[in-house]
Amino acid sequence: MRTVEWHEGKVRMIDQRQLPWELIMIDYDDFHDVAVAITDMVVRGAPAIGAAAAFGLALAASQSKIGDRQEFLRELAKAAQTLRDARPTAVNLQWALDRLLKSAADTALTDTDHIRARLLAEAQRLADEDVAINQRMGAHGATLIKDGDTILHHCNTGALATVDWGTALGVIRSAHMQGKRIHVLLDETRPRLQGARLSAWELKQYDIPFDIIADNAAGHFMRSGEVNIVLVGSDRTASNGDVANKIGTYSLAVIARESGIPFYPVVPTSTIDLELLSGDEISIEERSGDEVRAPYGLAFVPPDYPARNPAFDVTPHRYVTGIVTENGIVYPPFDVNLRRAVEGTLGAIQSDAR
Amino acid sequence: MRTVEWHEGKVRMIDQRQLPWELIMIDYDDFHDVAVAITDMVVRGAPAIGAAAAFGLALAASQSKIGDRQEFLRELAKAAQTLRDARPTAVNLQWALDRLLKSAADTALTDTDHIRARLLAEAQRLADEDVAINQRMGAHGATLIKDGDTILHHCNTGALATVDWGTALGVIRSAHMQGKRIHVLLDETRPRLQGARLSAWELKQYDIPFDIIADNAAGHFMRSGEVNIVLVGSDRTASNGDVANKIGTYSLAVIARESGIPFYPVVPTSTIDLELLSGDEISIEERSGDEVRAPYGLAFVPPDYPARNPAFDVTPHRYVTGIVTENGIVYPPFDVNLRRAVEGTLGAIQSDAR
Repeated sequence: MRTVEWHEGKVRMIDQRQLPWELIMIDYDDFHDVAVAITDMVVRGAPAIGAAAAFGLALAASQSKIGDRQEFLRELAKAAQTLRDARPTAVNLQWALDRLLKSAADTALTDTDHIRARLLAEAQRLADEDVAINQRMGAHGATLIKDGDTILHHCNTGALATVDWGTALGVIRSAHMQGKRIHVLLDETRPRLQGARLSAWELKQYDIPFDIIADNAAGHFMRSGEVNIVLVGSDRTASNGDVANKIGTYSLAVIARESGIPFYPVVPTSTIDLELLSGDEISIEERSGDEVRAPYGLAFVPPDYPARNPAFDVTPHRYVTGIVTENGIVYPPFDVNLRRAVEGTLGAIQSDAR
Repeated sequence: MRTVEWHEGKVRMIDQRQLPWELIMIDYDDFHDVAVAITDMVVRGAPAIGAAAAFGLALAASQSKIGDRQEFLRELAKAAQTLRDARPTAVNLQWALDRLLKSAADTALTDTDHIRARLLAEAQRLADEDVAINQRMGAHGATLIKDGDTILHHCNTGALATVDWGTALGVIRSAHMQGKRIHVLLDETRPRLQGARLSAWELKQYDIPFDIIADNAAGHFMRSGEVNIVLVGSDRTASNGDVANKIGTYSLAVIARESGIPFYPVVPTSTIDLELLSGDEISIEERSGDEVRAPYGLAFVPPDYPARNPAFDVTPHRYVTGIVTENGIVYPPFDVNLRRAVEGTLGAIQSDAR
């Protein structure tokens, strides 16, 4: 079972809003509904959103009955824009759609049905690659985890945030599969509670011991010596190693450094943006205050109480111990080594850098 | 209206569990119920708990029909133990009960009715002193706040945490009364949400502009330059300036120092424990995981999901800019100056210390 997949001509997704209470799959037969599902966070997590958008575009292609190549490509571009607008700040979504549009524009494909087939194959390849990439990150990252470690984790970075396996939670899963006895402290991750709801649900499935904690408790556990390593995901990593991730990540990184605890983002190279010189260039999405006032409709305060809700923060690279990618673990200087990781030439120099 | 008061022979309290939805007063005519109310957090906040326990002991005295002095004092000691056990880690509660028992033991009081009258008068004095002390802290602390400042605040430290006015929130109120235009960012303060529920309700009453934020967002707002000062309370301050306070305080203090933002606990000298050499001697109460899983019965996750819930953390004094007390603002070296603050001899040396 995958978080997002192509199933009998439709796009099938786990409805993550219903977890941990119920495991419900939804089949979409209209790409407009896929876009709405991305906006409404039926699916969330950078790699999962990318795959959902890719399958969404393949669905748009299969919905269209147009036979003229140029007209068909224009229609695809329009559908892609609808999917882009579903979550404008999601880098993987833009990346996935660009990749599919490029494959559709192949001049060797003269028949629109060939383009339809190519788009579906490309979406499928992208999804399969995501799983393979996660498993490679898992293998690299698991080398950082020792038997008996307690790992602090933020948000959800597991199978549910990806097509399958996961990024930071994938590393935890890989370490567990290697037989290492580990314990995980899961930040509940307010406001949307992805840690309490999704990561906890996943670790239950994998039989990995954990405790949910209020985000406020992370500092105490780090200071009291109960945490050996902090693993997080990243929505977007700048070329200098600055990391944009779920709100609260920055505080964890600062406290980790203060406590001498290693802090590692786990990121597929597709989310590394070499064009971005630093995290300061990343604009922070502010979401509705309702997520603070009444998560999942559970009202803490009346609706007229003012609230602010930045969804992400930026962690400057000086707090980052290293960055786990599918091509190896990147250490400073990040401005040099992240480029090598993206290019796949990290292997040779990694040992020098450490 | 006070958070805790003596009203027509009964102990009256605001039921803080019902806020911000409803303002409900409960009148207690049995000290056992006062103890249960303290345990169940009808009343919370160190000074408010102290006053509630003091009135509770006055109530126990008025309930008892014993005429023999020695027997009566033994009964009072038993009642005091019941009240102590209601919240064993609350320093103010122990302090208030010790003070009342000492006044009851005055050998000049030969008639038990005189002891009853003395206990009520002493509880009343303690409550009035709390309000006066808070207003003095407010006056000292308000000198730290400039027109246009944004203040970051954790938990609830307002009128609801005290008899009236408040400690850190009292400083904010004093600055507002002086006509300073201020804005307050209120940490919601998981797991019990005292910031979102109680501090927000109070600031609404006082017409002070605020926004509630998820605790995770505090670091982002500090790093982005939106915060001028951090004000918190303290349940217990050690002689070296280490501060035990609501979970999450430690992280705020570390991030504040990292951002060059001043961090001030606002504490009545009654909560400064000169016998404690450092905060490491303070044991941290771990409360039920239900507060994490299902705050106020609003279930985030199923009841069998494991959770950990430390209620407090300790902030080492190296992160503390200064400590606001009713006798002035204390600056390092705390081991010398906190003692002077407690003794009321701070005034002369404060300017030297800065």
